Amino acid sequence: MSIETRPSPLPAARTVFFVSDGTGITAESFGHAVLSQFEMRFRQIRLPFIDSIDKARDAARRINETYAIDNQRPIVFSTLVKNDLSAVIRAANGMHMDLFQTFVAPLELELGMKSTHTVGRIHNVVDSEEYKNRIEAINFSLAHDDGQSHKNLAEADVILVGVSRSGKTPTSLYLAMQYGIKAANYPLIPDDFERSKLPSSLPPFKHKLFGLTISPERLSEIRNERRAGSKYASLENCRYEVNEAEILMKREGIRWLSSTTKSIEEIATTILQEIKPDRREY
Amino acid sequence: MSIETRPSPLPAARTVFFVSDGTGITAESFGHAVLSQFEMRFRQIRLPFIDSIDKARDAARRINETYAIDNQRPIVFSTLVKNDLSAVIRAANGMHMDLFQTFVAPLELELGMKSTHTVGRIHNVVDSEEYKNRIEAINFSLAHDDGQSHKNLAEADVILVGVSRSGKTPTSLYLAMQYGIKAANYPLIPDDFERSKLPSSLPPFKHKLFGLTISPERLSEIRNERRAGSKYASLENCRYEVNEAEILMKREGIRWLSSTTKSIEEIATTILQEIKPDRREY
Repeated sequence: MSIETRPSPLPAARTVFFVSDGTGITAESFGHAVLSQFEMRFRQIRLPFIDSIDKARDAARRINETYAIDNQRPIVFSTLVKNDLSAVIRAANGMHMDLFQTFVAPLELELGMKSTHTVGRIHNVVDSEEYKNRIEAINFSLAHDDGQSHKNLAEADVILVGVSRSGKTPTSLYLAMQYGIKAANYPLIPDDFERSKLPSSLPPFKHKLFGLTISPERLSEIRNERRAGSKYASLENCRYEVNEAEILMKREGIRWLSSTTKSIEEIATTILQEIKPDRREY
Repeated sequence: MSIETRPSPLPAARTVFFVSDGTGITAESFGHAVLSQFEMRFRQIRLPFIDSIDKARDAARRINETYAIDNQRPIVFSTLVKNDLSAVIRAANGMHMDLFQTFVAPLELELGMKSTHTVGRIHNVVDSEEYKNRIEAINFSLAHDDGQSHKNLAEADVILVGVSRSGKTPTSLYLAMQYGIKAANYPLIPDDFERSKLPSSLPPFKHKLFGLTISPERLSEIRNERRAGSKYASLENCRYEVNEAEILMKREGIRWLSSTTKSIEEIATTILQEIKPDRREY
């Protein structure tokens, strides 16, 4: 993993390791959330798939080397299910944030059962229903991106509508990828505004429609990145489209949110709260 | 959030809450990893965007109601940056796994600085370079799915190749979505095998190519879900295509991995280790 050093106004960097017997994605997303609370630069080194004593020893060696070079303990976020691997890592010279050791033991007490200490169910994950649903949802969302297909809309969990570049595509893909939600999306275009009607395949599925709107200024900025100076990107046209889209959605009783200052994750989570799909047990 | 109860061989369910001032995605992915260590069913309730005292009180009320109904403490995974909100939640009758409280205080000591206690930088995230890169990567990966476009391949961080349905598309999208990696993908098709050559736009970018292979049995299974009984899905044809693709990749010196038993996350993480893009400081 390469390490860059760019000039930065923040205090000198600490090195952070993410050590996992799987992908390390959980350790990393958790570590990012915690580290973002500190006004400091961090160099990150991801060590995934540490699933044997030899690999754990190599990882421990890298942590110790970094300590020697930095002259400071690296911070080590780890999610290692096996006690023996975890022990090898914790013996290295770092500040250890062992996510499993910290939480699994109290949970064993609370639940009155031992944890399985199996390296993530993830290893059988590709055969699970949930995983198959996710892949199916990704394929569905791709096939139904940007109004490409009217087929099987009855299968959609949600159909996003909104003007071009309001955030429909990344949101649909995120809903599919993260939550296994089949999300179609349809652009609202000037033709629809002139007819004052929703695209013709949508009315039967009105209960599944969810709108994205966006401030005209932001939309114009985004469209200008693609087609600088075009009428399509002009603030005047963006104002017209956004206004018409909001009138249409209001008249049709479509719930909507503004994507202007929201990340894909925030938009997707908000939609999920609204559509409440019945898949909440695991 | 609806709650299903399906028949299950596992012990009766506990209720789990994921409480967050943001999307709750971190709390949830961490909670899933820990809970997957227990052979038990869990009902999950996600409470995102708990960013005011009133919302925290509502959340605490729901936790207490659940305790009364279940006659068991619910398990509460929370990522709340603000101490006052966290205190409201911890006063409720649950088993609390407070991810920030647990790790931020020791980090403050280690780093010799106070945490900012700001609700996720995520709120400014849409203006950040990193976020823009992710959106750009998603658009790039979509535009370069399945060999759709030969334009701007020089911009790609990685170009995945492999037979149809070997996992290229979801992997490309995941790389873009999670890591901001611009991932194009190209199918290897019978025409390529007859010519014994890579698709003609790829040789200039050989250093960025990464192959996905898959067992013929698994491939045939996946293809049969789409086109049952077709020649395309037949085991014989899958054997032929996979074999030819592997011969081609070997001859061209393309690194590859088998997607047969790997999740998208595992495939993406493995590729990331191989291509080591120079973007590892945050």
